[in-house]
Amino acid sequence: MAYIRTFGEIPGNSEGTLYVDREELRLAGLHAHKQNGISGTEAEGADAIVLNGGYPDDWDEGDLIIYTGQGGQDARKRQVADQTITRGNAGLVRSQMERLPVRVIRGHEEKSEHAPTEGYRYDGLYRVVRHWFKTRADGFRVLQFRLEKITEAETLPDLPQDIDVGDLGSQSTSDGLVSRTERVTQRLNRKVSVVRNIKKWHNDICQVCDTTIELPGGPASEVAHIQGLGEPHNGPDREENALCLCPNDHLRFDYGAIYLNDDLKVIDAKTGQAIGALRTHPKHSIDLRYVRQHRSYWTK
Amino acid sequence: MAYIRTFGEIPGNSEGTLYVDREELRLAGLHAHKQNGISGTEAEGADAIVLNGGYPDDWDEGDLIIYTGQGGQDARKRQVADQTITRGNAGLVRSQMERLPVRVIRGHEEKSEHAPTEGYRYDGLYRVVRHWFKTRADGFRVLQFRLEKITEAETLPDLPQDIDVGDLGSQSTSDGLVSRTERVTQRLNRKVSVVRNIKKWHNDICQVCDTTIELPGGPASEVAHIQGLGEPHNGPDREENALCLCPNDHLRFDYGAIYLNDDLKVIDAKTGQAIGALRTHPKHSIDLRYVRQHRSYWTK
Repeated sequence: MAYIRTFGEIPGNSEGTLYVDREELRLAGLHAHKQNGISGTEAEGADAIVLNGGYPDDWDEGDLIIYTGQGGQDARKRQVADQTITRGNAGLVRSQMERLPVRVIRGHEEKSEHAPTEGYRYDGLYRVVRHWFKTRADGFRVLQFRLEKITEAETLPDLPQDIDVGDLGSQSTSDGLVSRTERVTQRLNRKVSVVRNIKKWHNDICQVCDTTIELPGGPASEVAHIQGLGEPHNGPDREENALCLCPNDHLRFDYGAIYLNDDLKVIDAKTGQAIGALRTHPKHSIDLRYVRQHRSYWTK
Repeated sequence: MAYIRTFGEIPGNSEGTLYVDREELRLAGLHAHKQNGISGTEAEGADAIVLNGGYPDDWDEGDLIIYTGQGGQDARKRQVADQTITRGNAGLVRSQMERLPVRVIRGHEEKSEHAPTEGYRYDGLYRVVRHWFKTRADGFRVLQFRLEKITEAETLPDLPQDIDVGDLGSQSTSDGLVSRTERVTQRLNRKVSVVRNIKKWHNDICQVCDTTIELPGGPASEVAHIQGLGEPHNGPDREENALCLCPNDHLRFDYGAIYLNDDLKVIDAKTGQAIGALRTHPKHSIDLRYVRQHRSYWTK
């Protein structure tokens, strides 16, 4: 059965649920693999990790985890090569960049007071806040990730509060139909697909200045919404309302230093003059209603 | 008595505390002014706002507030001019940029179910998440700010968890001396002063690429820590461990696309070649211990 990568909570698998083995975790949709610690790819990000004592450099304080990346071990789990920002490791870097929640699963082989006594336990959502390489005493380099637990209150502010959630109906009418957890996960995964499409179409190249931020884990860009999400503007979380920007131009766009004309010229708000034209892509249609709404924030 | 701008909670003034009038609020250190809605400046950011029914465009849902900026009214509180991103308004924009918490105080003249029946009530910390101009029916333009309440859990992840807090001593010994609220406020205001010094010395110009992000509210930059704060690196929150960067170079620096040599040349991690030299400022000494620590994350 193919694994469908889903970010956030999986309905029916609340925090604290126990699983017999890795296969059961996979079938529940919690983690893609039966062996690897990280469930993720460079293109999609990582949706889950398992802590099960495989790496002596791991460090587990419960709400704060220092997690060692994957790779560089031989069949007997001896470190024989440096790790690199590829595969699952690159997935965790992408999750950091896009602030995607990562499910943490602890196994009974983890040497920590936070590990379950048998099987595997789903222990909630964490955010990757930093990564770096560490040179071990044996000279090999491993990747490390700092993960911090996110509370329920924190999972929401990143999400548009009042967007059209498609088949689920609007927020005001959906209470009787699906749980809050399901709605949040639905929105989160919808948001992920918008971000993924925009970045793919534009190859992470800024539509304003043609810059790509080249990182060791691959190219990076940000997805900006044209008409603001949430109250009072209630812009939709759709490709037609999104742009691929570098962080600098994202800041300029959100704070009104630049805006777009109907012909998609980029206007410097200070001078009112065009400083260039937005680069477009045939698959990425931009709805002028949103462009006009954003412009109305910054010009009379 | 001079007002000392402090961000975060003010000890002895917990959420829900009532005050007779604006003078009492000012003396408690909650809000700088007796008239203005916004307590803040462009240089320092805004630490507090009062909602008291002065602007018909305000919108109060409790945890979510759409707050109208100040200015453009005559003595009879009629709108006679457009608002601009200056003074208190520029302070709120800075608080958005630097993710500073803003104290929200509601007065009895506010027309909302969330207003107190008399006097003024301190209602906790909020984050400015967005701002824009709105053209009113009378044709005048006002600034608006979206503020979202921050829970206690959310106030901490932005703060270094394990930094040296100076006179307060280390985290492990301070529990008996000062309350958690005081420690958090102390750290937050310390962080604010580091950020302010770094930005001032460098005029918001990136030390790597000499870019300034020019926004309608003034120039913008980010302050990056060289050695990471918190576990496991425990870098200090000091000027000697900080850089003034544009968002693009901040991302490159944090994700290891660039690092510094001991002579402060900027090295491209992909090629190992210098791509330039870090611009320095006589008042801003950089401690090479932190530079070496950061470099060790990204090179062998």
